[in-house]
Amino acid sequence: MRTLIVGATGGIGAAAARAFAAQSGPLWLSARHRERLETLAAELGAEARPADLGYESHVSALLEGLTELDTVVYAAGAALPSPLAEADPARVRAVWNANYFGALWLLKHGLGRLAPGGRMYLLGARPELVTVRGFSQYAASKAALARAAEVARLEARGVGITLVLPPAVDTELWAQVGRVPRGALAPGVVAQALLEDRSGPGQTELRIGA
Amino acid sequence: MRTLIVGATGGIGAAAARAFAAQSGPLWLSARHRERLETLAAELGAEARPADLGYESHVSALLEGLTELDTVVYAAGAALPSPLAEADPARVRAVWNANYFGALWLLKHGLGRLAPGGRMYLLGARPELVTVRGFSQYAASKAALARAAEVARLEARGVGITLVLPPAVDTELWAQVGRVPRGALAPGVVAQALLEDRSGPGQTELRIGA
Repeated sequence: MRTLIVGATGGIGAAAARAFAAQSGPLWLSARHRERLETLAAELGAEARPADLGYESHVSALLEGLTELDTVVYAAGAALPSPLAEADPARVRAVWNANYFGALWLLKHGLGRLAPGGRMYLLGARPELVTVRGFSQYAASKAALARAAEVARLEARGVGITLVLPPAVDTELWAQVGRVPRGALAPGVVAQALLEDRSGPGQTELRIGA
Repeated sequence: MRTLIVGATGGIGAAAARAFAAQSGPLWLSARHRERLETLAAELGAEARPADLGYESHVSALLEGLTELDTVVYAAGAALPSPLAEADPARVRAVWNANYFGALWLLKHGLGRLAPGGRMYLLGARPELVTVRGFSQYAASKAALARAAEVARLEARGVGITLVLPPAVDTELWAQVGRVPRGALAPGVVAQALLEDRSGPGQTELRIGA
């Protein structure tokens, strides 16, 4: 299995990296924080490909030479909550680059690098959990991602695109919010669900947990 | 009635400008194309406020001195369709600035300038009509707008936010696509629906046509 994990140093990304590293086949990991990425890649025997997902050029560069990928996981994400009245352009951009535009460039440059039957997993969010005060950019960017995935499915041939819809997951994203929600899943549970989905026919929407 | 129309030189925006100009009270019009904007404003006895909606500073500048607004209409929009595999960053940015980020800055800076009971209208799109090949960025940005409007409603106090959901409308947007869809509404029908909605209690979602 040839696997690429983007956003590999985050909670879900790192858990997915560990889960897929336990399979046979080469593993590529990408993230913005070079040091954390290289430490993780070394630990898992994977290749590190640092990239800032806000730049199309970074995303196309991280894919260089990668062909016939079986699985791509896009697990980058940022919440940076704030009321609309205080929306800060730099934070807005950070949320959108992580949650949407990085995935857009990965769809553009990555879908054609999947092997026939290959599958891309995009980490979405459940509307009912994120349509709350302060989360306008998080909720909007995840809604955009879901819609782009729908159109991508209409345009792509011979490959699958899965929108992953976990409940709250215990990751660093909540450090931006101040507290982890009660009952948040361990990232490993999400990673395991990805692996299980990938071993079957693959679903269009992968709902995890309750 | 104190009214501001943003994206006022487009098909729906210009029709809304004409419709609201027929009411009493001052009218402000904003758009990027200064010449067309000034011609329209002169014709309608309105004040022209040119702005490029991709820049937060332009949006906050266009609102300078405007207070106690009764009605704000955000009618800017761009489709620029393209397959994801050929997504061009400049066109992607143009679509997102017109359909989403301009509205975001208007929500940030404009909601507080509405009079109590004031209302902001945001031009959305029906998911079932726009989730089609080539329209990934249009569909995604309109999905994002709808979600941001939902969160804005939770955050705003004493003002209304209406997501307008017309069917296809006969505007220049279709020039980007190549043809106007059969049965497309005249922009004046949308403008009339806005005016009617504004004369009543105002709806959260304003579905127009079939």
